[in-house]
Amino acid sequence: MSGILSIAGLGPGGEALITPEVAAALAEATDVIGYIPYVARVAPREGLVLHPSDNRVELDRAALALRLAAEGRRVVVVSSGDPGVFAMAAAVFEALEAGPSHWRDLDIRVLPGITAMLAASARAGAPLGHDFCAINLSDNLKPWTLIEKRLRLAVEADFAMAFYNPRSKSRPEGFTRALALLQEACGDARPMLFARAVSTPEEELRIVPLDRATPDMADMRTMVILGSSQTRIIERPGGALLYTPRSVACV
Amino acid sequence: MSGILSIAGLGPGGEALITPEVAAALAEATDVIGYIPYVARVAPREGLVLHPSDNRVELDRAALALRLAAEGRRVVVVSSGDPGVFAMAAAVFEALEAGPSHWRDLDIRVLPGITAMLAASARAGAPLGHDFCAINLSDNLKPWTLIEKRLRLAVEADFAMAFYNPRSKSRPEGFTRALALLQEACGDARPMLFARAVSTPEEELRIVPLDRATPDMADMRTMVILGSSQTRIIERPGGALLYTPRSVACV
Repeated sequence: MSGILSIAGLGPGGEALITPEVAAALAEATDVIGYIPYVARVAPREGLVLHPSDNRVELDRAALALRLAAEGRRVVVVSSGDPGVFAMAAAVFEALEAGPSHWRDLDIRVLPGITAMLAASARAGAPLGHDFCAINLSDNLKPWTLIEKRLRLAVEADFAMAFYNPRSKSRPEGFTRALALLQEACGDARPMLFARAVSTPEEELRIVPLDRATPDMADMRTMVILGSSQTRIIERPGGALLYTPRSVACV
Repeated sequence: MSGILSIAGLGPGGEALITPEVAAALAEATDVIGYIPYVARVAPREGLVLHPSDNRVELDRAALALRLAAEGRRVVVVSSGDPGVFAMAAAVFEALEAGPSHWRDLDIRVLPGITAMLAASARAGAPLGHDFCAINLSDNLKPWTLIEKRLRLAVEADFAMAFYNPRSKSRPEGFTRALALLQEACGDARPMLFARAVSTPEEELRIVPLDRATPDMADMRTMVILGSSQTRIIERPGGALLYTPRSVACV
């Protein structure tokens, strides 16, 4: 019996944002592995074993997935959003590279999903409609100095910026420092989007000028997007739209 | 009758990558508007008017969509990939901002899709598994000097980089210059991915060291992803995997 390992993205939360490819992989799975709240999004059924695990055990989870697939099981590792963006795909490949060589014979597929920045961007308008970057603000796996360096260079490049994992209970100070750096380096009132729990019943969107943004506006369920110097707001009765035009006339 | 304007992403090409949200919007549409090859992906049916148009008329197309929605029609503007990433959403908002004020009362929704860089990344492994940027290499709407500035800053930030619209028949020289700049600025043999027509029958993937990449490896259907200095290759019998680890130990 030959196993298969799919590393799948469940999208930001809403059922209507799960691709048919991912739905089909889940329907055929014998085992679903992932962080507790993501596994909770998969309906239990006869013949399916759910393996929820806690945060920060990504490599253990990856090794379990590889072992089960090597035993011939049809394994799906689930991430929120897209598995390739600050999620489980890189962790599985780290475990694969460090593991026994027979794991390299496995059938491994990455199934893309709607990542948080694109879901948040869509709800607000099109703030990522021009060149942009995506930065993970957690310093669990990289030095804080590198985050600061990237923020300064991203401002200089005039990228719009999407920030994943802006703030958690164990790292309350990082986003405070990032925000202060951005306010000083940009020196303007460009729009900043705080998009919480997009496509779920708890969805909340807030657009504020950068110079009036405060750290408490973000938590771990919030996607933060900072516009470039060109990003604009269209005021409307139904709610403001945020977008970055396609053109830049001069530099 | 109140119209609605949905700006929808069809994903990279495969049916299994179209979200149920987008499929539902298409099923209820009276009018579908977009670039010829994208409209061709929508099945004709009774009661649906297809409005295919040529490239480079994005603002005319956007204005048509807004006019039809204002007349009470259920309009879907289609883009390949995600509508918010170098696609129609920003063009619609440019037209909206410049147009008559009653357009601001319209019900407008952006429906996200699987953008090309995430589809390409998934097929190759997880090259965007750490901080990255997305740059449109076309200089139709911005000066070439700005593209070069962003490339240099992105190398300095050690981002992985996703390049949209790398090369077209009318702009054959841009990618040649971009590639020369990247080869000089990086000065190494980090992996570069050329992913053509991902999720379609014409799909082709090629991974080459940056110092051996040549301009002819890309065309307008190719997504190009350049790794960061940390991006790694795992050799396997079934084909190499490309990924960027989550961790950076020091800078």
